[in-house]
Amino acid sequence: MIDPVFADDLILDVPYEAGSHHVSDEEIIDFARRWDPLPMHTDLAAAAASPFGGLIASGIHSFGIYQRLTVLNVYRGWQIIAGRRIHELEFPKPVFAGTTLRAFVRIDRIVPRGDGRSVVHKTGTLVDDEGDLVLRIHPQVYMWDRTSLLGST
Amino acid sequence: MIDPVFADDLILDVPYEAGSHHVSDEEIIDFARRWDPLPMHTDLAAAAASPFGGLIASGIHSFGIYQRLTVLNVYRGWQIIAGRRIHELEFPKPVFAGTTLRAFVRIDRIVPRGDGRSVVHKTGTLVDDEGDLVLRIHPQVYMWDRTSLLGST
Repeated sequence: MIDPVFADDLILDVPYEAGSHHVSDEEIIDFARRWDPLPMHTDLAAAAASPFGGLIASGIHSFGIYQRLTVLNVYRGWQIIAGRRIHELEFPKPVFAGTTLRAFVRIDRIVPRGDGRSVVHKTGTLVDDEGDLVLRIHPQVYMWDRTSLLGST
Repeated sequence: MIDPVFADDLILDVPYEAGSHHVSDEEIIDFARRWDPLPMHTDLAAAAASPFGGLIASGIHSFGIYQRLTVLNVYRGWQIIAGRRIHELEFPKPVFAGTTLRAFVRIDRIVPRGDGRSVVHKTGTLVDDEGDLVLRIHPQVYMWDRTSLLGST
């Protein structure tokens, strides 16, 4: 049994480590065939002839890797209601096949709504083998507060 | 053979229709098990007991559906170099299992960089069966200009 973690339990400004994920050719191509079938993500020859000189992951795939790692390794027990918006999603460097990515998530702000829920503002990052930032994301999610327990039936 | 479409060929302010996609229970669960394994997306019983009362798609899944539809139905021949950033990504309403989503993309602004590339600012939307907006996204992507042909070897 995992203890529930409410919005008011989160620690501000300290990055939570969310583990790592190896990005293979096969995974890039498989993801992109379903969800982002541009040749730079699906076709080794086209990718080699591109300005990047090799296969790069879809940005949506990078977003998925970030989310998978944070859900599995950080959000255990977190009382998440739903995502609200992503204020900003940046791809400062391409994700090449063969890279291992590490994920981090930091809590920037917790805004109680007064109805037992808070909006939690986060900064998420993915870093590649060379220590370079490949994804930065600013999500806002709804979470339950501890006080929501009082109102539950 | 598809004619190439450069940044300067795009039509501003008119929504391009990108077709539709049916979202099944199975697809929501399959996507979420890989990339967003929160119970609201992977577990029918947990989802039924949630404030939404049923299974809802991961926001990353919705983003993937939008991208799949626009790549397959709109971006044929478009000379896309890479995504730069998503300025804003909003989920105004949950995507429930059994919904059919329609995608649209509009070109808001084309900013030439003077090096044969432009930054193209877009607004993308996904609309559900009831005509309600479920995803709105403001991506910026790099595309080749027609003038880039002059410099190519």
